Amino acid sequence: MPVNLTAPDPNALYPVPGVQLGITMAGVRKANRRDLTVITLAEGSQVAGVFTANRFCAAPVQLCRKHLAAAIGPRALVINTGNANAGTGEDGLMRAFSTCVSVAQLLNLSPEQVLPFSTGVIMEPLPTDRIAAGLPAAIADLKEGNWGVAAEAIMTTDTVPKAASKQIQIGGKTVTITGISKGAGMIRPNMATMLSFLATDAVIAPQLMQALTREAADKSFNRITIDGDTSTNDSFVVVATGQAGHAPITQLDSGDGALLRQAVIDVATQLAQAIVRDGEGATKFITVQVDGGKTEAECKQVAYAIAHSPLVKTAFFASDPNLGRILAAVGYAGIADLDQTRIEMFLDDVHVVTDGGRKASYQEADGARVMKQAEITVRIDLRRGPAQATVWTCDFSVDYVKINADYRS
Amino acid sequence: MPVNLTAPDPNALYPVPGVQLGITMAGVRKANRRDLTVITLAEGSQVAGVFTANRFCAAPVQLCRKHLAAAIGPRALVINTGNANAGTGEDGLMRAFSTCVSVAQLLNLSPEQVLPFSTGVIMEPLPTDRIAAGLPAAIADLKEGNWGVAAEAIMTTDTVPKAASKQIQIGGKTVTITGISKGAGMIRPNMATMLSFLATDAVIAPQLMQALTREAADKSFNRITIDGDTSTNDSFVVVATGQAGHAPITQLDSGDGALLRQAVIDVATQLAQAIVRDGEGATKFITVQVDGGKTEAECKQVAYAIAHSPLVKTAFFASDPNLGRILAAVGYAGIADLDQTRIEMFLDDVHVVTDGGRKASYQEADGARVMKQAEITVRIDLRRGPAQATVWTCDFSVDYVKINADYRS
Repeated sequence: MPVNLTAPDPNALYPVPGVQLGITMAGVRKANRRDLTVITLAEGSQVAGVFTANRFCAAPVQLCRKHLAAAIGPRALVINTGNANAGTGEDGLMRAFSTCVSVAQLLNLSPEQVLPFSTGVIMEPLPTDRIAAGLPAAIADLKEGNWGVAAEAIMTTDTVPKAASKQIQIGGKTVTITGISKGAGMIRPNMATMLSFLATDAVIAPQLMQALTREAADKSFNRITIDGDTSTNDSFVVVATGQAGHAPITQLDSGDGALLRQAVIDVATQLAQAIVRDGEGATKFITVQVDGGKTEAECKQVAYAIAHSPLVKTAFFASDPNLGRILAAVGYAGIADLDQTRIEMFLDDVHVVTDGGRKASYQEADGARVMKQAEITVRIDLRRGPAQATVWTCDFSVDYVKINADYRS
Repeated sequence: MPVNLTAPDPNALYPVPGVQLGITMAGVRKANRRDLTVITLAEGSQVAGVFTANRFCAAPVQLCRKHLAAAIGPRALVINTGNANAGTGEDGLMRAFSTCVSVAQLLNLSPEQVLPFSTGVIMEPLPTDRIAAGLPAAIADLKEGNWGVAAEAIMTTDTVPKAASKQIQIGGKTVTITGISKGAGMIRPNMATMLSFLATDAVIAPQLMQALTREAADKSFNRITIDGDTSTNDSFVVVATGQAGHAPITQLDSGDGALLRQAVIDVATQLAQAIVRDGEGATKFITVQVDGGKTEAECKQVAYAIAHSPLVKTAFFASDPNLGRILAAVGYAGIADLDQTRIEMFLDDVHVVTDGGRKASYQEADGARVMKQAEITVRIDLRRGPAQATVWTCDFSVDYVKINADYRS
């Protein structure tokens, strides 16, 4: 059961002028499920992406990087679920490229204008024949209003499709930002999450695209973790079709640029948090906020130590205020000169630890009350500097193990 | 169910001349269980220890370090289970010291000659009154033949007591090495494991003690992980009573010194592996061997990435050869210049991956056969250097979550 997350209302997802989506059932791994999506981008669209830091990055990720670097203007994305085409060596690269060739042929593009994405089981050959056979139906289905269907078609162990949408005004024009994401396990993005696509019709100077994409990923997908496993296929792609008709945005620090930047970050954050809310077996949504660090990096390090600890996560699952496990994680996070006698800990509004020890006034009943909630904030104050960082995670349940022990069977 | 591990035969545990152990039920946390152990060391015994790297180290760990540094010859160890006395601030330090005072008074020692150890729940006040009340009974029970009972009395979530013993010949004299350990969760020692005590009657030059202890820890306890959580209380202590009567050992690199060193490492490795075999919820014992690294450090880094991955560990639990998850962990282990096209992977004798992709001759039936075993070796060859490292871990089961969701309740 996802935590406070329901399928998006298709009517609340604004189409993005210049972006069309087409979906079909290609039988990549299982029959009778939507598993192949094609997204076309109007001529002149800007595209930027950030990808997994996993050195075992999947074949489609390697091709995406190459095709984006070629800078001849991507015009189509092709996404399959059911097979990640990772750990597949040279043969996997050939199969990913062959899918690009098939798409290019049908849309009259060059293969380098196609960006391929795959998600699903690792180390199995991509069934290019079934994908090629499904492409005409996907292309026949292309329309602007298909965001909700596409969100469903990119799911793997997700239980709920994930999408978010927002409109803002720039120079008297309505600008739309709409995105979808997927992922529920193997989630500790280190660049971006498993798969997320975000599009806007804003008019943006090309040189700003990569910085905007990077910042949106850093403030959203790079702040979530479910199980600490960085996927081989993480990809986050931002498209700007430039069809909104306002004057081009040439900087992101103030005015309309700042407005757009914040809207993109908001949509990306909503998509990232949706992944945590639908984390495999999740019953709780946990915000881990670390204040008072010397640097943002050390705050993130402490926050991730807490968010990855199986002992902390099982205590959340049990609604057990066994909060010493959180202190232990702070202690092993790797800050060599950490002074334990300065640490403060709060569970929502409850002050649990002061000066590194249990606060005299802390009552276990107060901790137990907060632990029963579906959404909980753990706040640590290191009291050694001005920096801060927040990450989002979920608990670790019996169902997580069952799902991952059964996933392929 | 522990993996190929049964309670030690008390008759197979050789007493160590100069070391006596006494055990009682003090009611530290639960009634009617042995939870308090006193170990006395004959005058002239050498003692060295290595302790947790967790910055939130427990009060007894802080006192142990201080008392060992005082170098006035430790003569007693006092160990309670049921309460870790960690995350307890200044008050915890006072309580640990008060226990040392009680022991010292009864044994006619100074408090600095007593080393305190605690294991159990974090962030609860140590019940010093109940411990003090139990000490006379523990001291009345002191005898050389009590190693098996002590192994039981230091358990927490352990299901089987852990002990190992060995005799070697040095200079015509029989030398004994006997040790005990405990731990089943919050196990990713970074110095030493939760608690382990090893004693020998060998005659060792004092200046060699720390190096011997450190090396034994590095080759045993620092190579295991159950859940990646480094405990606040990890302690590994080596005692040499010097009563075996052979000529003093003055170096560890060859001859009798090397013989003793290897015997100490063997006993420590057996104790460390016993912890993994009894890992919370464990159904499998996994050896992760990484060859062909540039440095031992990077081999360990890759081995731990595999050994900590919840996805890898749940696949072992399911006996599912979902081996792409192992490749993904190799990829995110953090070796920036890793070339995925050189990676080889073996599952016991089965060659699964070559040049970074699935080996053409690999049959899933072969992987499935190995995955069903209770003991499995995963071997990765990075093919970039001469270094090697091995770590031991267990799988991740539904029972792990159940145990840790229930531990305090």
